[in-house]
Amino acid sequence: MRCVTTNRDKYVKYINPRRGYADPRYLNVNPIQRGGILTEEAKAALLEWCDGYSVCDFCPPQTPRLDKIANPPISEFYRDLAEFLGMDEARVVTRCREAKFITFKMLGKAGDYVVLDSLAHYSSYLAAELSGLRVKEVPNSGYPYYKVNPEDYALKIEEVIKETGKPPALALITHVDYLYGNMVEASKIAEICHQYEVPVVLNAAYTAGVSPVNGKELNVDVVVSSGHKSWAACAPTGILAMNEEAAGRILKPSAIEGDVTRRSFKFKEVALLGCTVMGAPLVSLMASFPYVAKRVQRWSEEVEKARYVVEQLERIDGFRQLGLRPKMHTLIHMESASLYEVSRKHKRRGYFLYDELKSRYIVGIQPGLTKHFKFNVYGLSWDQVKHLVRSFHEIAEKYGIEVR
Amino acid sequence: MRCVTTNRDKYVKYINPRRGYADPRYLNVNPIQRGGILTEEAKAALLEWCDGYSVCDFCPPQTPRLDKIANPPISEFYRDLAEFLGMDEARVVTRCREAKFITFKMLGKAGDYVVLDSLAHYSSYLAAELSGLRVKEVPNSGYPYYKVNPEDYALKIEEVIKETGKPPALALITHVDYLYGNMVEASKIAEICHQYEVPVVLNAAYTAGVSPVNGKELNVDVVVSSGHKSWAACAPTGILAMNEEAAGRILKPSAIEGDVTRRSFKFKEVALLGCTVMGAPLVSLMASFPYVAKRVQRWSEEVEKARYVVEQLERIDGFRQLGLRPKMHTLIHMESASLYEVSRKHKRRGYFLYDELKSRYIVGIQPGLTKHFKFNVYGLSWDQVKHLVRSFHEIAEKYGIEVR
Repeated sequence: MRCVTTNRDKYVKYINPRRGYADPRYLNVNPIQRGGILTEEAKAALLEWCDGYSVCDFCPPQTPRLDKIANPPISEFYRDLAEFLGMDEARVVTRCREAKFITFKMLGKAGDYVVLDSLAHYSSYLAAELSGLRVKEVPNSGYPYYKVNPEDYALKIEEVIKETGKPPALALITHVDYLYGNMVEASKIAEICHQYEVPVVLNAAYTAGVSPVNGKELNVDVVVSSGHKSWAACAPTGILAMNEEAAGRILKPSAIEGDVTRRSFKFKEVALLGCTVMGAPLVSLMASFPYVAKRVQRWSEEVEKARYVVEQLERIDGFRQLGLRPKMHTLIHMESASLYEVSRKHKRRGYFLYDELKSRYIVGIQPGLTKHFKFNVYGLSWDQVKHLVRSFHEIAEKYGIEVR
Repeated sequence: MRCVTTNRDKYVKYINPRRGYADPRYLNVNPIQRGGILTEEAKAALLEWCDGYSVCDFCPPQTPRLDKIANPPISEFYRDLAEFLGMDEARVVTRCREAKFITFKMLGKAGDYVVLDSLAHYSSYLAAELSGLRVKEVPNSGYPYYKVNPEDYALKIEEVIKETGKPPALALITHVDYLYGNMVEASKIAEICHQYEVPVVLNAAYTAGVSPVNGKELNVDVVVSSGHKSWAACAPTGILAMNEEAAGRILKPSAIEGDVTRRSFKFKEVALLGCTVMGAPLVSLMASFPYVAKRVQRWSEEVEKARYVVEQLERIDGFRQLGLRPKMHTLIHMESASLYEVSRKHKRRGYFLYDELKSRYIVGIQPGLTKHFKFNVYGLSWDQVKHLVRSFHEIAEKYGIEVR
């Protein structure tokens, strides 16, 4: 054996503590972090269920599958989760991207197309690639609004039909994108896709768990989401909710059989590889769920904060919010030409903004960026929102940028 | 919104606390749980890194990938992990079964065969099925030893060649199986497979992290293991370690490209869907790693405990250890015809054994079983081992079974 056996300090030093990020004085406005902060209930549950596959001690031997565990109430949670999202069946998987992969793999055949919006997250493309699917992108309107036009889904479906003689295996809608925080007209897109009998997957990574999302009302077949992004849960947790028809195809039982032993595993769901999140992160998701189910009702106030921040930051000369207006989501992308001008002469170059924000206990905007940057105000108190705005105003004034 | 929004107690009541299982007076001898108990360092790290994708705050923007994060030292950990397992590259994925799926998917083509031993875990079959592979099973000798004969891998490879005109895409070796805790002669099997140029995957879910496993010495191409089973980490964590050649094929970069945006993601590893365990469970694995690297050196003492338990339990009339003798692993499968006889007349039927053990603070043997059952003594102190043995002797005597 080697150095790792003795160099215990190397790991412990770095791993614990998480420096400024865990310090409650800091606001972390990283777009991916605002919806994933654990509740106190989740933290308590985490320590209780941290060991290995803790929940598997309670797996029923006759129906051995994660979703059949009654105590802790995983089985009931899955039913609640499906109902909460307006769908018929739900499973917790290891990541939203895995939920997409599972859906693509089970609803598509190698070589099929998936039509997706051009603001889709990279993991949507990788999920398609790993499933052997090809992609057709629905364009967006580009700078400064980046709008996805629902009717363009029809054009891309037609393009697939022209090329292959049949509609795409499915369509993916990014409910709110990672770049501009634009919300698309999901139900309109779903209606268009369904006219071609194309099943629709809603990527609700940035919406479900923070805002009300009802798959039935939006008329989609599958809703996927991210527990660590938007459900106050630990990574890695993904949510896969389906209507009955999609569930029948996605949760297909295993059909493989051993040639010698004749063993088969018909009770196991093949695309889930049997079981998925067998411990702590699932329990964190469950423990936070009552809180999450409540917080989505306060979404309009969150949007109000986002609009307030945009209005106040656009008072700074050279600032302009990119993406659709008015904001319908708390992820904000800001163009900031004036800060870029400062950075060109500053000895810390673009890092000056990071330094200035950090000295005001604000972190999570990508270090080095000034020309444009994104952040998320979800879950900030009004006091914190005002501190954020005041900080930007102070920084602007410090560098001689006008605040109107 | 519905009842879940208000019924907070329903979840909290069941989730916290974990009843007897978290009570330190209880010994949990469930075969899958002994190697997954967290260290104190891992628990501390868990709370520090519990929020959402906590480690992603430290992702380098120019090389955005989990394995490139330097602080916390994920990058260095992956190198240490590879070296610890005698391999060239390592990744942490969400489960051992996902590591198998990734390997099968990237080393095989749909319709190819994988040759595996007939004691392989069900998830090995599902990983093959999801990858579109077929299986050929290497038989075992059956009751009472269930021995897998290394030479039989050659017979199955020949069978595949005869059927398809080419060797299987790969061979899987279950290093120690979940049922009898038999250890196979991995290096001998690998040598046979390599004579046919078949790449070899070692499923070390029950060995790596508790005992010394060196993929290079065993001459295998890929080692997969389970963090929550054997590395003192939270679920879901899987380990995927590869030699250079296998890594080149398994960690293939994404090649998909958007037809409109021309976006591509060449820096992302497609079969990993980019990133995998982006938070708490990974950090728990890292925090426990120095301890794990040390504990594998004490493996011979763990085996000694297993042999002692077998010797002492076989003093009970009707008890017989199944699987290979002498024990080379701490997972023990015991036949116990005499307890079964008791159960036939007991008003609690097979559950009497569970009740008797629980009253002695021993849990983890499947409730209801008496004819034969399995358990794991890994990591028990000698005092605990003796308590386990004494408990069985007491139970036997209480029901009039002779203890020689």
